[in-house]
Amino acid sequence: MTHEDALHRLNECRDDIDGVDIRILELLNQRTSIVEEIGQIKRDLDLPIYEPKREDDVYRNVTGHNGGPLAADAVKRVFERIIDEMRSIQRMRMIQEQGRDKSC
Amino acid sequence: MTHEDALHRLNECRDDIDGVDIRILELLNQRTSIVEEIGQIKRDLDLPIYEPKREDDVYRNVTGHNGGPLAADAVKRVFERIIDEMRSIQRMRMIQEQGRDKSC
Repeated sequence: MTHEDALHRLNECRDDIDGVDIRILELLNQRTSIVEEIGQIKRDLDLPIYEPKREDDVYRNVTGHNGGPLAADAVKRVFERIIDEMRSIQRMRMIQEQGRDKSC
Repeated sequence: MTHEDALHRLNECRDDIDGVDIRILELLNQRTSIVEEIGQIKRDLDLPIYEPKREDDVYRNVTGHNGGPLAADAVKRVFERIIDEMRSIQRMRMIQEQGRDKSC
């Protein structure tokens, strides 16, 4: 492969990554919408936001389905970040709802 | 919705999340494979692994395509984790290759 071919292939790879990232982003937003529905149900049923057992199930699901090349501990760290962001959203919604209740 | 219906819906939502997570995982692994190819090209061309400008492009791509409900800063933090994991893989491969070169 010439130097020029290699640079061309590098750019193709980057375009592929940009495409994959947009699909990841769509799924993250889809996941957020489901988490928001879960949050609403939990508030209605007066259940706690943080459920460590359920979070363990989430990690078990992804590490159990991981065919690589990403290592299991890397997968876990990425999903830790995802779960952490979604937990923040649930907390924020809870505060917003409490504020609304008080103003009624 | 009865208490029982709500609990049933909660479980359905969790199944949906597990499905979304497996799709995110597949895309993360697809992204890793592309990053590994990029790493190989960079080593062949003797280019640096860390390119801050390219990382800015990655953040711009995802935040620019974000329709929510996930906030832009949350999207950025998730992708920071993803990029960080991929950079570690590229570094590890570089060390492995240097080791191989020395043993030849």
